[in-house]
Amino acid sequence: MEQEIYYDNSATTRVRDEVAQCMLDMMCSSYGNPSSLHSKGFEAQQRMEQARKQVAASLGCDASCITFTSGGTEADVLALIGGSEAMKRRGDHIITTAIEHDAVLHTCKHLEDLGWRVTYLKPDSEGNITVEQVLDALEEKTVLVSIMAVNNEVGSVLPIGEIAKAVRRKNPTCQIHTDCVQAWCKQPLKVGKNLDVDFLSVSGHKIYGPKGIGALYVKKGAKIKPILFGGGQEKDLRPGTENLPGICGLGLAAELLCGEMKQNEAHVREIKDALLEGLKKMPEVCIISGENATPYILNISVPGIRSEIMLHYLEEKGIYLSSGSACAKGGPSHVLSAMGIDRKKGDSALRLSFGRYNTLEEVPIFLEALQSAIGRLKR
Amino acid sequence: MEQEIYYDNSATTRVRDEVAQCMLDMMCSSYGNPSSLHSKGFEAQQRMEQARKQVAASLGCDASCITFTSGGTEADVLALIGGSEAMKRRGDHIITTAIEHDAVLHTCKHLEDLGWRVTYLKPDSEGNITVEQVLDALEEKTVLVSIMAVNNEVGSVLPIGEIAKAVRRKNPTCQIHTDCVQAWCKQPLKVGKNLDVDFLSVSGHKIYGPKGIGALYVKKGAKIKPILFGGGQEKDLRPGTENLPGICGLGLAAELLCGEMKQNEAHVREIKDALLEGLKKMPEVCIISGENATPYILNISVPGIRSEIMLHYLEEKGIYLSSGSACAKGGPSHVLSAMGIDRKKGDSALRLSFGRYNTLEEVPIFLEALQSAIGRLKR
Repeated sequence: MEQEIYYDNSATTRVRDEVAQCMLDMMCSSYGNPSSLHSKGFEAQQRMEQARKQVAASLGCDASCITFTSGGTEADVLALIGGSEAMKRRGDHIITTAIEHDAVLHTCKHLEDLGWRVTYLKPDSEGNITVEQVLDALEEKTVLVSIMAVNNEVGSVLPIGEIAKAVRRKNPTCQIHTDCVQAWCKQPLKVGKNLDVDFLSVSGHKIYGPKGIGALYVKKGAKIKPILFGGGQEKDLRPGTENLPGICGLGLAAELLCGEMKQNEAHVREIKDALLEGLKKMPEVCIISGENATPYILNISVPGIRSEIMLHYLEEKGIYLSSGSACAKGGPSHVLSAMGIDRKKGDSALRLSFGRYNTLEEVPIFLEALQSAIGRLKR
Repeated sequence: MEQEIYYDNSATTRVRDEVAQCMLDMMCSSYGNPSSLHSKGFEAQQRMEQARKQVAASLGCDASCITFTSGGTEADVLALIGGSEAMKRRGDHIITTAIEHDAVLHTCKHLEDLGWRVTYLKPDSEGNITVEQVLDALEEKTVLVSIMAVNNEVGSVLPIGEIAKAVRRKNPTCQIHTDCVQAWCKQPLKVGKNLDVDFLSVSGHKIYGPKGIGALYVKKGAKIKPILFGGGQEKDLRPGTENLPGICGLGLAAELLCGEMKQNEAHVREIKDALLEGLKKMPEVCIISGENATPYILNISVPGIRSEIMLHYLEEKGIYLSSGSACAKGGPSHVLSAMGIDRKKGDSALRLSFGRYNTLEEVPIFLEALQSAIGRLKR
């Protein structure tokens, strides 16, 4: 296969070389347990605190607000269960959207089983949610609002900063969580006045960092209970021997990607614009992603050609993309159906997601491959 | 520093080179998301299933019984909470021991908060628990027995195989969990007739594998509920994008260490015997570990010299050991106090834990360093 085009960066990314090297060093040389009382332990502890500062810097917060988890899913579950259970004397209501990642949605279903009431806000046809929708759903008994920053399937950018402000004004005790797995290090995310959330989830493997590591930002004073129990690590909020190579890889990946955020954004925007220009000339192609979507994600559909058929055809040409969330494993998309996308379009949806290793040169190759696929597969 | 002596292998181990190389490859080349529908995803999926077989082989079970977790702590918590909650219509009682790892003990405390009754069996002065103790505590309402295979502080070997048999006979619906973090790949652990447990926890970083990864064996038909919610990975028992490099590192580390189990056991036994011979000539030293303890762990005490003072003195000579569980971070040991070890001895406890990189040549160096420490520090 001559050349690969990897348009599946929202599913996962290749670990960058600097990060892999750092992890190799942590595995074979600085392999101490940060809880150990000898110098190998102290060294590990120091490396961990340096990584915590790197993650904190990416969010503009104090290092003490960062808790490492095993990934984005665990960070989401911790915020949702831990943040609700800590507030259960205050109320019994949670607000989220119908287009969250399954880590949020399935945790909400679990919380419903435990007696919580959950409102799932419906997006418009481009995957947008408004501040007004959230305020309309907000009750005195609402203890948690959980809304993602960027949708992982269609790339819609949700106004989480504005939502947080409005929620604070109307119900100051309600806690606010945002899943930033797709937004982190790709758009500015500085917690504080303009992003006044209590909990914010991030993940390593979407930012050229390791799999199996993530973090939860917890605002000072926010109320949260642990969901795992054990040796007291991470101030008792997340026990278990710390995954030092993962943690250090996460910190470095965040620092590096944040440092190149503007270039990368301009780069993927150029790629997306070039793709859109070509795609708009193909009458068989519908664009699903909205105008305001992140430049990192482009969801399209070729009605009449089922996603998996198209994916298979393209991968034989060395082109990798997905039908939606990788986690859905090809099942129907809850995001597209919440957006009211009809079944025929939804069954043929393709998610292209871009990253730092993509090039403008790939665009005509992809467009040609797609055109040939349409010619061959469409009946 | 001329030479290092690392006697803290029960806290954590250096990742072996073969494992680190495998992980590097998974991070930078085979970096697909196993849930993706294209060949990069399939390749990742296949590598994952190969690792699952390697872990299963180490336990003599079918690969479908292995669920990957973020480590030993999560595996323990999943077995305890998931295994109890799934049985809550059957009863409200759990049996464990007072010398379990905090991952088990603190989860039991949490379950007590939720209304469960927990019996904590007391060990004898060497850290042993008998089958009779378990049977005496077993009730009709007991739904879970959780007993470790090897204690992490003193190395006592608990008769979990016999316990499981006896429990099955008296209460066939009661489920049985064993924390095998310290025993895995160090002593034979084949589930089935002689080790008929429902749940068995293991961890990567104690076996020259990665941190941040572990696994739970779940017997076919055992009742368990998830504690995390999300994208449906690991048959819905443990969601979240799979930590492929960690998983593959875990599988390889298990295969390699199991393959050299007998040599390693003979090797560390020789080291431990040589140490014991020397230590028994030092009147200031008490041996805490019992005769039947694993050869991998030796707990001693030099009453009058507090553990942290001794650790600090020895680490300046390049010798690393611990005062007990790394997770306890130097706090008083719940294991030693459950064993009835008096405070003076307990405050001076030292855990030496051995591994494949230790040598017989280190023994006289350690003994000399300890003797000189006693001369310098004892008043």
